[in-house]
Amino acid sequence: MGTDYVHGYTPAETRRLTDQAGTLADLLHGGTTYPAGSRVLEAGCGVGAQTVQLVTRSPGVQLVAIDISEASLAQAKARVAEHAPYAVVDWRHADLHELPGEKFDHVFVCFVLEHLADPVDALTRLRGLLNPGGTITVIEGDHGSAFFHPRSTRAQAVVDCLVDLQAAAGGDSLIGRRLQPLLEQAGYDDVRVEPRTVYADQNRPHLVDGFTRKTFVAMVESVRERAVAAGLLTAAEWAAGIRDLEKSAAPGGTFHYAFFKGVGRT
Amino acid sequence: MGTDYVHGYTPAETRRLTDQAGTLADLLHGGTTYPAGSRVLEAGCGVGAQTVQLVTRSPGVQLVAIDISEASLAQAKARVAEHAPYAVVDWRHADLHELPGEKFDHVFVCFVLEHLADPVDALTRLRGLLNPGGTITVIEGDHGSAFFHPRSTRAQAVVDCLVDLQAAAGGDSLIGRRLQPLLEQAGYDDVRVEPRTVYADQNRPHLVDGFTRKTFVAMVESVRERAVAAGLLTAAEWAAGIRDLEKSAAPGGTFHYAFFKGVGRT
Repeated sequence: MGTDYVHGYTPAETRRLTDQAGTLADLLHGGTTYPAGSRVLEAGCGVGAQTVQLVTRSPGVQLVAIDISEASLAQAKARVAEHAPYAVVDWRHADLHELPGEKFDHVFVCFVLEHLADPVDALTRLRGLLNPGGTITVIEGDHGSAFFHPRSTRAQAVVDCLVDLQAAAGGDSLIGRRLQPLLEQAGYDDVRVEPRTVYADQNRPHLVDGFTRKTFVAMVESVRERAVAAGLLTAAEWAAGIRDLEKSAAPGGTFHYAFFKGVGRT
Repeated sequence: MGTDYVHGYTPAETRRLTDQAGTLADLLHGGTTYPAGSRVLEAGCGVGAQTVQLVTRSPGVQLVAIDISEASLAQAKARVAEHAPYAVVDWRHADLHELPGEKFDHVFVCFVLEHLADPVDALTRLRGLLNPGGTITVIEGDHGSAFFHPRSTRAQAVVDCLVDLQAAAGGDSLIGRRLQPLLEQAGYDDVRVEPRTVYADQNRPHLVDGFTRKTFVAMVESVRERAVAAGLLTAAEWAAGIRDLEKSAAPGGTFHYAFFKGVGRT
């Protein structure tokens, strides 16, 4: 191994990065495998982060992946080609209102409902695509599950901006706690919802880095300009809030977040 | 079986009640067993709810259980005599500042630190009682982990009363998120903290009843008079908040709460 590979490519670093990707994927996808040959629809595949997991964990499925964004679909194709080159995915440019006419054995929806004004309508449409006995699996976060040490009202204010902006856009970043009633309202049977929790402290450094910093704080940071432009916080308040939030990723800090995973049946 | 036993003593009802008690105990005590013969200290045994679990799950340990309240100790003795009649427990009336002079292999502390003004001091004293290689296990809740559907600012206000009153009394009902830094500050090695989450919806009726209603809402209700007397909320605001909070235990409602369990080593 040449010296070019020393930085960031030590075995420890490689293991850390693998753990980091693997830990969250295991948390979200654990328990979700589909039999080879079954017809699976991923509704809203985005850039393919979950698609890679689906085809890796359920080899041999007939996967149809749809997304409303051509640009995201292109990224998803590239990602699957890189990480699961032998997987065959039927990519379709479509939104949830122009779903395929064929039927599926299983539907998988991750981080999609949070953006919809009428998630029950979407879940009901998806139910119409399922064969008898088919399942839907839905994964969503809930930003109200985020709490941390040290506590800080300034840090909470920047998190609240994310919640408020998503609500103003017609979505709901607190949707995780509603998965069970949403699935019931959409007519699914045998609905089972469970929290899938991320807890990070200094003795779980891969989660501090991979989740607290690079997932949660990064996600909050991504709405900085919109939050300040909307007058939700001043630039100074924003900066102070982020500084405080980052303390949850420092030694002595802790961070908690709960995803929710729900399964229903036709 | 006579008709006197029909109400509430059907096999289903018995199973439900057993599940209810068992589910929370498994959640909190899962992973905690001590070898027969080891010397274990339960610091702050209260009315013995956890003591019963300790002696049942670790038969043959030499358990010393201390509490500051003679009345609680009497209840704890009665509870262990009823539920684990063959267990031998060495009961001691003592507080955390007058700890036994002998050494222990393991210390167990559950729902105690939340009431202390200086939890690091208590943890440090307890560390002094441990033999080399001994462990401490600490379990605490965190009321900031409570979130529910439907959301309600009035319901959140009654929960906040509980947090404020405990803080005013020198405690911290948001202590769960701090377990890791507290154990580190007290000098423990190999500190490992993890959340232990309760999630209840209508498809988990034993948790809706046993946890949302009979544990969490009941705990909030217990501070009603103090909250109103302190002027934190009016009686009408309190009643409205409890009504809203109870909707989380109705069909279509959901409730989330995280306990934290930490283990450290000397």
